[in-house]
Amino acid sequence: PEWVRDASQDVDESIIKKFLAELDTNEIKENLRELTKVPHMATTPGDEATVAFMLKRWQDPKTGLDSAWREDYKVYLSFPNKDNPNKVSVVDPENQVLFTAREREKAYKPEQQDPEVVQPFAAYSPAGNVKGKLVYANQGKMSDYELLNRTLDLRGTIAITRYGGEGRSKKAINGAMFGVVGVLVYTEPYDINDGLVSESETYPHSWYLPPSGVERGSYNIDFGDLLTPYLAAKEDTYRRPKEEITGIPPIPTQPIGFEDAQRLICELDGEDAPAGWQGAFDCTYKLGGPGFKATSSFTNSTVHLDTYNIEKIENSANVMGVIRGSVEPDRYVIYGNHRDSWVHGAIDPSSGTAVMLEITRVLGKMVKEGKWRPRRSIIFGSWGAEEFGLIGSAEYTEEYFSKLSERTVAYINVDISVFANATLRASASPAAQSVLFTASKQVDAPGTTMSVYDNWIRYYNRTSPNYGIIPNVGFLTGAGSDYAAFIHYLGITSMDISYYYDQSKTRARIYPAYHTAYDTFDYASTYIDPGFTSHQAVARTAGNVLLRLADSLLLPFNCSDYAESLEQYFAQAVTAFEAKLAAKAISMESLKKAVQFFRDTATKLDRLIRDSDLVKETPLKARRINDQLMLLDRAFLDPLAFPDKYAFRHVIWASRSSSVATFPGLADAVEKAESSGLKEDWDQAHKQLSIVTQAIAGAAHTLDDVI
Amino acid sequence: PEWVRDASQDVDESIIKKFLAELDTNEIKENLRELTKVPHMATTPGDEATVAFMLKRWQDPKTGLDSAWREDYKVYLSFPNKDNPNKVSVVDPENQVLFTAREREKAYKPEQQDPEVVQPFAAYSPAGNVKGKLVYANQGKMSDYELLNRTLDLRGTIAITRYGGEGRSKKAINGAMFGVVGVLVYTEPYDINDGLVSESETYPHSWYLPPSGVERGSYNIDFGDLLTPYLAAKEDTYRRPKEEITGIPPIPTQPIGFEDAQRLICELDGEDAPAGWQGAFDCTYKLGGPGFKATSSFTNSTVHLDTYNIEKIENSANVMGVIRGSVEPDRYVIYGNHRDSWVHGAIDPSSGTAVMLEITRVLGKMVKEGKWRPRRSIIFGSWGAEEFGLIGSAEYTEEYFSKLSERTVAYINVDISVFANATLRASASPAAQSVLFTASKQVDAPGTTMSVYDNWIRYYNRTSPNYGIIPNVGFLTGAGSDYAAFIHYLGITSMDISYYYDQSKTRARIYPAYHTAYDTFDYASTYIDPGFTSHQAVARTAGNVLLRLADSLLLPFNCSDYAESLEQYFAQAVTAFEAKLAAKAISMESLKKAVQFFRDTATKLDRLIRDSDLVKETPLKARRINDQLMLLDRAFLDPLAFPDKYAFRHVIWASRSSSVATFPGLADAVEKAESSGLKEDWDQAHKQLSIVTQAIAGAAHTLDDVI
Ligand SMILES: [Ca+2]
Ligand SMILES: [Ca+2]
Ligand SMILES: [Zn+2]
Ligand SMILES: [Zn+2]
Ligand SMILES: [Zn+2]
Ligand SMILES: [Zn+2]
Repeated sequence: PEWVRDASQDVDESIIKKFLAELDTNEIKENLRELTKVPHMATTPGDEATVAFMLKRWQDPKTGLDSAWREDYKVYLSFPNKDNPNKVSVVDPENQVLFTAREREKAYKPEQQDPEVVQPFAAYSPAGNVKGKLVYANQGKMSDYELLNRTLDLRGTIAITRYGGEGRSKKAINGAMFGVVGVLVYTEPYDINDGLVSESETYPHSWYLPPSGVERGSYNIDFGDLLTPYLAAKEDTYRRPKEEITGIPPIPTQPIGFEDAQRLICELDGEDAPAGWQGAFDCTYKLGGPGFKATSSFTNSTVHLDTYNIEKIENSANVMGVIRGSVEPDRYVIYGNHRDSWVHGAIDPSSGTAVMLEITRVLGKMVKEGKWRPRRSIIFGSWGAEEFGLIGSAEYTEEYFSKLSERTVAYINVDISVFANATLRASASPAAQSVLFTASKQVDAPGTTMSVYDNWIRYYNRTSPNYGIIPNVGFLTGAGSDYAAFIHYLGITSMDISYYYDQSKTRARIYPAYHTAYDTFDYASTYIDPGFTSHQAVARTAGNVLLRLADSLLLPFNCSDYAESLEQYFAQAVTAFEAKLAAKAISMESLKKAVQFFRDTATKLDRLIRDSDLVKETPLKARRINDQLMLLDRAFLDPLAFPDKYAFRHVIWASRSSSVATFPGLADAVEKAESSGLKEDWDQAHKQLSIVTQAIAGAAHTLDDVI
Repeated sequence: PEWVRDASQDVDESIIKKFLAELDTNEIKENLRELTKVPHMATTPGDEATVAFMLKRWQDPKTGLDSAWREDYKVYLSFPNKDNPNKVSVVDPENQVLFTAREREKAYKPEQQDPEVVQPFAAYSPAGNVKGKLVYANQGKMSDYELLNRTLDLRGTIAITRYGGEGRSKKAINGAMFGVVGVLVYTEPYDINDGLVSESETYPHSWYLPPSGVERGSYNIDFGDLLTPYLAAKEDTYRRPKEEITGIPPIPTQPIGFEDAQRLICELDGEDAPAGWQGAFDCTYKLGGPGFKATSSFTNSTVHLDTYNIEKIENSANVMGVIRGSVEPDRYVIYGNHRDSWVHGAIDPSSGTAVMLEITRVLGKMVKEGKWRPRRSIIFGSWGAEEFGLIGSAEYTEEYFSKLSERTVAYINVDISVFANATLRASASPAAQSVLFTASKQVDAPGTTMSVYDNWIRYYNRTSPNYGIIPNVGFLTGAGSDYAAFIHYLGITSMDISYYYDQSKTRARIYPAYHTAYDTFDYASTYIDPGFTSHQAVARTAGNVLLRLADSLLLPFNCSDYAESLEQYFAQAVTAFEAKLAAKAISMESLKKAVQFFRDTATKLDRLIRDSDLVKETPLKARRINDQLMLLDRAFLDPLAFPDKYAFRHVIWASRSSSVATFPGLADAVEKAESSGLKEDWDQAHKQLSIVTQAIAGAAHTLDDVI
């Protein structure tokens, strides 16, 4: 029959070559220019303009997709009050205002003057008017406040903290536990600017953050719409009372620039802060008296923090587009990025969106010209309201939970596509390591004479027991971008791909203009990737991965690579916990057996694949093996493993607070039990051990002979 | 290629005919004789003997399966103490024992004298020694105790209750809330014997329960091993402290026969019990003074209840067997029944096991002779420790959760295969209605000249909007047998099949020897199914269903029948709740749309199927549609919908306490909100409405065009 050839069609290397060649730096650049014309914070008119732009491109009769549409959710957002901006000031006992922090960032280019630039704010910080003596609380970690609390009464104080080391909202949550009434957060130049603080050394003179730049951000722990956990936020969906929301600041919180932070910190009284708390300002950072030193003009003054943030339920759109698969339309490869930014968002997220649009242009053209159609369906997602907590992608996975769980082969996330020009960086499920390697070997690294793969290995590498030295692919243990709902909630094999900087050459926590009004097309095209060649390299690498996932007869996933990661985690767990658990009569033997069983069944499946000629055999055999590979990450899901962590169901990659890089439930439970010494906490450690053991054994069963 | 024909092979009607013809009444009878030789309560030597017997049969070189093996779990059970039997007595104020209830049932045949007959007991009742004045509490429902509590102080009393109307353990749980210190449970002859009480009218003279017969049973609400929810009960699996177990009696509880119950009830003092509480004893049932009437020899005496039950962790085996599928070995049809009984268990469960063994004999022979091999794999399960709470099947689904979720097409449960000779009775997911009809039309009803289907419709029928009058297939809303973990926990399309009695001719709650020492081969072959033709009819019907599920090119599931059930539930919900919800500004409009959307997508999929010639098209198309059908029930799962109900995840069929036959979460939440009037309870009703709406819409998405 005629369908026999189609059913056994494998990936066509000549199509991949053609695709790679067509990806154009100039097209990416023009995409970026268009996407960053105006600020496009979620649900603002600028966001709606990008929705229209995406739809226009994806519905283009010559280069568009098979179809594209928008899907709307009513989501819970937080904004500053335009008519009543948030204020940070120093007020003396006579109520004289001695100092007021900037309400907007300084304009060096017209973009910063756009009236749509949102005032810097901490999304989900409550509105409130608080005042108190100032203390410096480093990164706002529990240990930071504990240190302060040894010598200071923190009740009624305002804490100034620096970004990094702890989640944004935790700086306020932790502080509130010690009686702190308000929190300021600033970007320390030591962490972001390699210590540079002067205007002449920062943007527009370099990629560094100007003194008035402020990192905006969402101050929450859980992702997704905060009023509708596990339910898609439709018009009449049940919304919990906002009082039930956890993980957001309980006290007013506001970010400021380092120019203002310097004024406050360098006037502080009290003891010298520890060495690790010092930064780049030309003063010794002190803890605070609490409050300012006697020699300061601020002496006896308090810091006033007045926030007027307003929560609103607004309409946020995902823009979706598909190319229908020819042979297995019921298998999806999903490629996505968010669309919303804080301001112009040239790097975050538009560098990724510009790449996605170039990939869809080239693929769309091949489809429209009848030259190609993927074996599996490809779904593109331009997510809304990511900056407020990955909301668009999370709501999408909630609405289409069953369909996506059943059919999705992989999710590829390219948010910020280019942080800088040095090297590829990727995090992924171990199953996807091999396809990342295959793809990156076929792409030239910009500015070098080598492949992206060979260049990558120079910056990030590790020694694999099986392969020797290979690029180090990170684990997707957090919720840093829209892959979170896919890997953690749905258990879909996911990847997060970008071009990154040389971390031996800068201490920058992230690219310096991140979430500020300086993240503009000018910034991106002047300092981040002037020739757009890194954008192109990411487009080629991620696009190549996409094509291989969509077109390969056998899914390019490697279950033995998964076994290697589990063995690595297991070894860490043994080192860190075996003796402690044994002392409580809890044995790790079953976990060891489960990991060994996983290795054995992975080897067996690999052998079956090697010994099969799938082009000649029934397509039901390839489908069978592909189902085993597709569903491998799914097998690690346990919806009850982490009852306190919204949507974290993947027993291996869930978020972890312990510093031991191993199975997260076990690591956190042992840490808690050690600290409390309680029998019931050791019971929980035992339970987590059983949970991860059963998950690994259960996953191994799916790799075993199917009957 | 040679695989093309195999891939498109459909069910072979001639194989089905041959299979039906070979199922032999005598073989079933001999199976039953062998299975019931000794009592085989879970984990006893008799149980081990049946394990060996099953293995021998399934490993038989001529009639066995491809392979068979045992799988063991360490499960938490409860037994009476052989050396210290439980005691129920009446003791006067001078400590004279005036009456003692029987410790074993009267022997009419040698079977009752077997030393392995376990003393009647309430499994999971705590050990304890309590005494108190007796009250009669009808069925032990909350409303029963509330009625008593209006006029009596129940604190310190012993309550005697009758079986029925409420779960076993709830009779004790409810009573304890009113201060009751011990509970007796008896089988009321009105409910089980159509009022007959005399030895001359009961077994061995009829199928009715002798006066000393006692229904044993497991007194728990949750199913599965009580120490290891969601974890398979392996050697070193984490076990929660037994104090954390909920749903078992908090006070000593013991079942007794009606002969003893009559002595106690007819001596009671106090007001006349309501008409609905009266029974078949030749006296007016009174509420109790509390205690006995002045004219009774028991006056001023108390009832003493001394229980010595012992909890043990014991080794329980499932026996598993498989026939490997030829074309789609990675698709499973599972057929199962438990193996353990309370005593000899001729009807429960061995009537089902005898049928299962006959099915495997005929199929095994066809396989061994090379005459047939199913398209999909068939898995047979002989579950252990069902009587203690569906333990073997539940642990199996926990251990193999991922594999079974991914690959199982259906689960067929035949526990008690023959309650009596009148008619087929079945409960099932609506998706399976059509295959039950197809199969039952091809089988002759014993003792009639019509098909099982035509006979069935005479006893149980309903008017379907689509088909007119058809047999009424029940819903699988409870956890009455081993289908529970499959439908509720895994979301696998399940069926429960048996032959039943004419409910217009008897009020019997269940067949009278249920869970007693009279449920023997003699009883079954004399009174239940002397010619074993009803057993044969069940074997033919269930076996026919099994073959169609295993061999059909297109799975014989009908998604439009599912739509009809959802519409029926929706109509009930509108009638019962719409106005009440509207009064709280909660709209049912989205639910209505979801149900309509489900109907539309079901119609669309039906049309696609009708317009396809799957024999000629790529096997990937049949696989695609089959995946949609196989996973339909899975799409209704929500692991967080019912946080307080272990393993109930199916949003449509979960257990329900409300009497409104509709979506269980919604019904129970509205009932609670109405009763409390609290805003937060109405919020929960809204949440349940959103949960079921999203589940139905999500399921509809899986039926829609795949992309
Ligand atoms: Ca939501
Ligand atoms: Ca268990
Ligand atoms: Zn981003
Ligand atoms: Zn961002
Ligand atoms: Zn049974
Ligand atoms: Zn039973």
